[in-house]
Amino acid sequence: MIDQTRLPHELATVEWRTLDHACHGITSMQVRGAPLIGVAAAHGLALALAERPTELDEAIRSLTGTRPTAVNLRWALEQMAEQLGPLPVDQRAAAARGLATEMADHDVTACRRIGEAGVGVLADVHRRTGRPVQVLTHCNAGRLACVEWGTATAPVYLAAQQGVPVHVWVSETRPRNQGASLTAWELADAGVDHTLVVDNAAGHLLREHLVDLVIVGADRIAANGDTANKIGTSLKALAAREHGVPFLVAAPWSTIDPRCATGAHVPIEERDAVEVLELAGRPIAPPGTRARNWAFDITPAELVTGYLTDAGHLTPAELRARRADDGRVEAPGTAPGTAPGTAP
Amino acid sequence: MIDQTRLPHELATVEWRTLDHACHGITSMQVRGAPLIGVAAAHGLALALAERPTELDEAIRSLTGTRPTAVNLRWALEQMAEQLGPLPVDQRAAAARGLATEMADHDVTACRRIGEAGVGVLADVHRRTGRPVQVLTHCNAGRLACVEWGTATAPVYLAAQQGVPVHVWVSETRPRNQGASLTAWELADAGVDHTLVVDNAAGHLLREHLVDLVIVGADRIAANGDTANKIGTSLKALAAREHGVPFLVAAPWSTIDPRCATGAHVPIEERDAVEVLELAGRPIAPPGTRARNWAFDITPAELVTGYLTDAGHLTPAELRARRADDGRVEAPGTAPGTAPGTAP
Repeated sequence: MIDQTRLPHELATVEWRTLDHACHGITSMQVRGAPLIGVAAAHGLALALAERPTELDEAIRSLTGTRPTAVNLRWALEQMAEQLGPLPVDQRAAAARGLATEMADHDVTACRRIGEAGVGVLADVHRRTGRPVQVLTHCNAGRLACVEWGTATAPVYLAAQQGVPVHVWVSETRPRNQGASLTAWELADAGVDHTLVVDNAAGHLLREHLVDLVIVGADRIAANGDTANKIGTSLKALAAREHGVPFLVAAPWSTIDPRCATGAHVPIEERDAVEVLELAGRPIAPPGTRARNWAFDITPAELVTGYLTDAGHLTPAELRARRADDGRVEAPGTAPGTAPGTAP
Repeated sequence: MIDQTRLPHELATVEWRTLDHACHGITSMQVRGAPLIGVAAAHGLALALAERPTELDEAIRSLTGTRPTAVNLRWALEQMAEQLGPLPVDQRAAAARGLATEMADHDVTACRRIGEAGVGVLADVHRRTGRPVQVLTHCNAGRLACVEWGTATAPVYLAAQQGVPVHVWVSETRPRNQGASLTAWELADAGVDHTLVVDNAAGHLLREHLVDLVIVGADRIAANGDTANKIGTSLKALAAREHGVPFLVAAPWSTIDPRCATGAHVPIEERDAVEVLELAGRPIAPPGTRARNWAFDITPAELVTGYLTDAGHLTPAELRARRADDGRVEAPGTAPGTAPGTAP
């Protein structure tokens, strides 16, 4: 795995050999990003079963407890449990490795489809304005958060490949600065024009008509379309609506959680206050200051213009209608099977 | 002066002896906060005239150029020029010192009146809820930004003195972290309960009903009530309106600029990108990353519930009506004269 805590200063990889490595790697955010932690947890489970093939439930419990908000983690593990539970114990480790690899492959396909669902929106803006498309994003919903392509970045990368000029405003994303350290890094790596701003700048950018589209990822989408994503996302959504700019949520279908009726049912992870109180290891507040550190917030569905998914570009009403069809989450057009994003 | 760039790690003072010291001190934000830089510029002019009493215009030009957005700076200097210009050259330095001292005294009075204009709002919330009043603020509009009391903090300090329990959510205020380093420091110093959060947290706090009132300062208020304040303020105003929470702007009357019809006429300072690209001297983005660093944004008057001023607690309509009375800015109830906040 790329150790994302070392970026942008160093492109270092870390090798996981045990369940403990995987749990620590997810909790400490060596890997982060909803789709990636699903795939990473699947690999963690394969490592666990290679060590102790009888302890399937224990391993799933450990991995499920690493991060509470992103639904992809739970989803991947539930898929694995369903497939692996009935197998003879001595076949589980190999089967788990196979399933984890399938999930990674499926993530690439899903992200590519998200890109296809969104690239037309960018091309339209460029056709209309004749200048580079100005995209604002938050946190990192890029290829570092996935296996390839990313979610929010997939339409950007595809547009760039198709010759549509794009410029991305990268919001630094306090407290962990995933925008500054990860999104800026991967956009530079891909040769996509971009500019870093503080999270506070979104209102100014939108008021000054410097943004054509806001595109963000999602950690969990409730059944009604309410979207849990990195803390601060809802502020960008409010500003986008205020200034008439489309606000697009890009996520694989597996990010929709039919068990959460609305955003109020999504558990919001609260992380260690030290992430707020220190920057680069140096305290930024007086000794003894108390801080709170919620990692996500809820953007209500009414602020979302559209969802870019592996099942296409959907309005909130279309998203709700499609998943209400059979009361389960299913991505039309993807073959049913073990991959995340499809219900069995 | 307290060197605010050293807080919260060290309470150090810096002595200004020359015009250059003053210009450097304001530009580098040893002193910051709209009311304080007005008073500081007045003292800078007194220092300049002690050195070169004939160079009134040159000194005013240098000081005016230090920071473009806060109107108090220009206002203080224009007041000084009007009073000092007609005087014999050898009387200017002493007169300038006297005027600067008067301005500092006036600031204390104005901030105390802002506190009186707002304290009833906090007391009402406490009476209604029976629990500590939850205030969200942004940046530092506290006593460090003024001479005493502060603007946004004046109602908080007065409420605390009157036994109304208050808890303040302190927004860290990237890129310079004035919330974390200054507001947290002065609230701790005053014994006011507070919790630090990242700027991104405002949407979550408001959605979860953890905020009763948002109170911020202002660097310039246009004639129509549009308010320039620290970048990110407008996002908090949008979230406050969305969740039905009052959004109060606390500022002395001198912050209103009758020459700016709307917020579109307020010049927005853009500062060095290094403030965004580095944290505590360490780069947070890959080498070569481009950044933009606007220091302020505009909150439109329609998002402001009320203005807490030295002329009382006014609605946007009352603010406009009162200043339209004579087409000039005048704070009723303050004696006309040389002090900022009163038109001659």
